[in-house]
Amino acid sequence: MEEQSEMVGRAFVDHYYNLFDNDRSSIGTLYQPSSMLSFEGQKLQGSEDISAKLNALPFGQCRHAISTIDSQPSSFSGGVIVFVSGSIQLLGEDYPLRFSQMFHLIPTMEGSFFVQNDIFRLNYG
Amino acid sequence: MEEQSEMVGRAFVDHYYNLFDNDRSSIGTLYQPSSMLSFEGQKLQGSEDISAKLNALPFGQCRHAISTIDSQPSSFSGGVIVFVSGSIQLLGEDYPLRFSQMFHLIPTMEGSFFVQNDIFRLNYG
Repeated sequence: MEEQSEMVGRAFVDHYYNLFDNDRSSIGTLYQPSSMLSFEGQKLQGSEDISAKLNALPFGQCRHAISTIDSQPSSFSGGVIVFVSGSIQLLGEDYPLRFSQMFHLIPTMEGSFFVQNDIFRLNYG
Repeated sequence: MEEQSEMVGRAFVDHYYNLFDNDRSSIGTLYQPSSMLSFEGQKLQGSEDISAKLNALPFGQCRHAISTIDSQPSSFSGGVIVFVSGSIQLLGEDYPLRFSQMFHLIPTMEGSFFVQNDIFRLNYG
């Protein structure tokens, strides 16, 4: 179970940031109506509002670079908790921004996962 | 429910870091045999091993200062997810260390909460 949660975590992280960086308008497909996002303290609920927020961020092209991924099974939900640290390079900016983010992934009927909880914070030095 | 998760998150964070800074030998009381800790990538399971790890860290007295707390209900477990950023000042060190940490809290029979998932990472600049 522990190895499985790590595989799920790594695969999800690859998929999530690849979508974010290359096809951000599709990112809402990873959320459901019950999903919650806290983005730098701002709370949003539901795939539509979350997708709208992420697509309205005040930057266009960006590249995420992942430093660490920690995954644990979420025994009481059958899901996986994924904790990520890394940096975002915004197009045209000199220095990347460091961030931490956690996801609570819940299994779907179709054998995949969706994001139920998503908390994002930039790291200030 | 959303306000309640924030109240739970804030109260837990106060309690957790107060215990860590002032009575670290009691911190195992916040975990259960099923609990998991990922500490800088090292995985531990169960309140005994987690408490042993936290009490064997290579520093004595410390003071946590909390910068942000983000809490969300964990609908599928009846619990609360808490994401913390802050810094740790170690006794005798000049500069505090920045960290991010997340907790998945699960309700107990007694109406309290225990830590099921705990992921801790220092933030490197």
